Amino acid sequence: MTNFSDRLAESILSRRSGVCVGIDPDLSRLPDHLRAAYAGRVAELGDAGAVAACFSEFASGVIDAVADVVAAVKPQAAFFEQYGAPGWEALRRVVACAHEHDLPVILDAKRGDIGSTSAAYAAAVFGGAPALAGAPLPGLAADAVTVNPYLGDDALAPFLERCDQGKGVFVLARTSNQGAASLQERDCDGRPLYLHVTDMIARLGARYVGAHGYSDVGAVAGATAPTSLAAVRAALPHAFLLVPGFGAQGAGPEALAGLASGDARGYVVNASRSIIYAWRERGGDFRSAAAAAAAEMRDAIGGF
Amino acid sequence: MTNFSDRLAESILSRRSGVCVGIDPDLSRLPDHLRAAYAGRVAELGDAGAVAACFSEFASGVIDAVADVVAAVKPQAAFFEQYGAPGWEALRRVVACAHEHDLPVILDAKRGDIGSTSAAYAAAVFGGAPALAGAPLPGLAADAVTVNPYLGDDALAPFLERCDQGKGVFVLARTSNQGAASLQERDCDGRPLYLHVTDMIARLGARYVGAHGYSDVGAVAGATAPTSLAAVRAALPHAFLLVPGFGAQGAGPEALAGLASGDARGYVVNASRSIIYAWRERGGDFRSAAAAAAAEMRDAIGGF
Repeated sequence: MTNFSDRLAESILSRRSGVCVGIDPDLSRLPDHLRAAYAGRVAELGDAGAVAACFSEFASGVIDAVADVVAAVKPQAAFFEQYGAPGWEALRRVVACAHEHDLPVILDAKRGDIGSTSAAYAAAVFGGAPALAGAPLPGLAADAVTVNPYLGDDALAPFLERCDQGKGVFVLARTSNQGAASLQERDCDGRPLYLHVTDMIARLGARYVGAHGYSDVGAVAGATAPTSLAAVRAALPHAFLLVPGFGAQGAGPEALAGLASGDARGYVVNASRSIIYAWRERGGDFRSAAAAAAAEMRDAIGGF
Repeated sequence: MTNFSDRLAESILSRRSGVCVGIDPDLSRLPDHLRAAYAGRVAELGDAGAVAACFSEFASGVIDAVADVVAAVKPQAAFFEQYGAPGWEALRRVVACAHEHDLPVILDAKRGDIGSTSAAYAAAVFGGAPALAGAPLPGLAADAVTVNPYLGDDALAPFLERCDQGKGVFVLARTSNQGAASLQERDCDGRPLYLHVTDMIARLGARYVGAHGYSDVGAVAGATAPTSLAAVRAALPHAFLLVPGFGAQGAGPEALAGLASGDARGYVVNASRSIIYAWRERGGDFRSAAAAAAAEMRDAIGGF
């Protein structure tokens, strides 16, 4: 089984792109023709089922269109969960669609709980829940997941153990939202809290290093706080960074200066709305607008 | 719409119980006769569907049996999510079953993300996701949810806004697991991190106070760290505390000394495994064993 970090590095290198496309489907922003088509199928599919099928067609269209210009796909679990069981099934189809293009999937779920519960979350994301008879369940079959460090390292352990099975974990260090500083930048024993989290990541990730020299245990650090982002990189030279905050959230390429580390740069920059809803600014088909926006972003953050 | 905190207070007072029963279904611990019955239905229901139906019957049996002796029900989302769409549907049925007994449901999901994503999680848990035509979707229809504070107060805001609609939020302050101390007890500007979280809870919860004097914004604080639990109570005299760590996790009634605040005591103590799997120790029917274990716990933590 290839390490997650190697699959991500190879995707970055083969596509010459450091873009991660976030799949955050919001019904009010989807193209009118798609909404109209599925509004006509509510009787057949149910309320939640019709939205979920609409999300599935939209997300597949985006992923098919951007597959050559992005390195990874990051579906946001929340947007699917709000449509219940059909939403969960649509999320599973998004993962499968990305895999048809050999794109690694980072499920953005920000999970974390005490040990036995984190093990169940890992089974949901990566597979492995026991069946009544026969093989364990496949789960969502994602390649990596985002996790929250607040509960401490024993809560992360069940996710990390999956690195031996080719999976990856991105631990929240310094997030991109405005209120992130209220706890994460707080001075704890002389250093900001997020650097205690990077200590944890460095310690836990040291045993999961792939052939490209990157750990399967990465960090989330937002481009909206460039000084902190640089500090996370300095603390974690061998980790992949998942960098949100680009595009709609306001950060530009200047936030990425000096961030490269290793043969595949060691980071992916996520953009969701500015790619998947690019048709709203650019007009035309949502798929070709997404492909054009993703290619521009790839070039803006530096082609290879 | 009655405040969540008032519904919880009235449930505690009318049942004379401060017990919250955690619904954490683990296939390997379920009664043999249930597993055998649903193993025979895999062809009909599918692998995940058969487990989900088995969970549903088990959870309903427990809830029906303990409904008079517990104040609230806390399903753990992870255990259902690992069975995908059928698991999610089983979780929805667990909420509905608790509501048939007028029991408030605290969904233990430990969610938290940037604002627009937290809003989608709130829609998943409480309802409100837009449909293609007609009324918004009902979601899981839980009464309250556990949330993670690491992202800061703007990430909590979309959950808190639901307090105006009769919902409640429990913010993780000091969790019950062994590794909790690694971040939560760290000295930040002269005080442990979890007390900065209680500051946030006090500030955010002040505007959501019900007729019994409790805020709809509570805190999670584990009985396994009694000194920290007491400090959380001192910092939040008007908050409901959700106290895990009792029973299988090792804490006993002595950890609760001095914790009472207000007319309904202001806390519920959660136990999962020691109640729902009581039949494994006591023998007999899983339902009557759960009822007996819950009643004993009610008395151990102090009847009213």
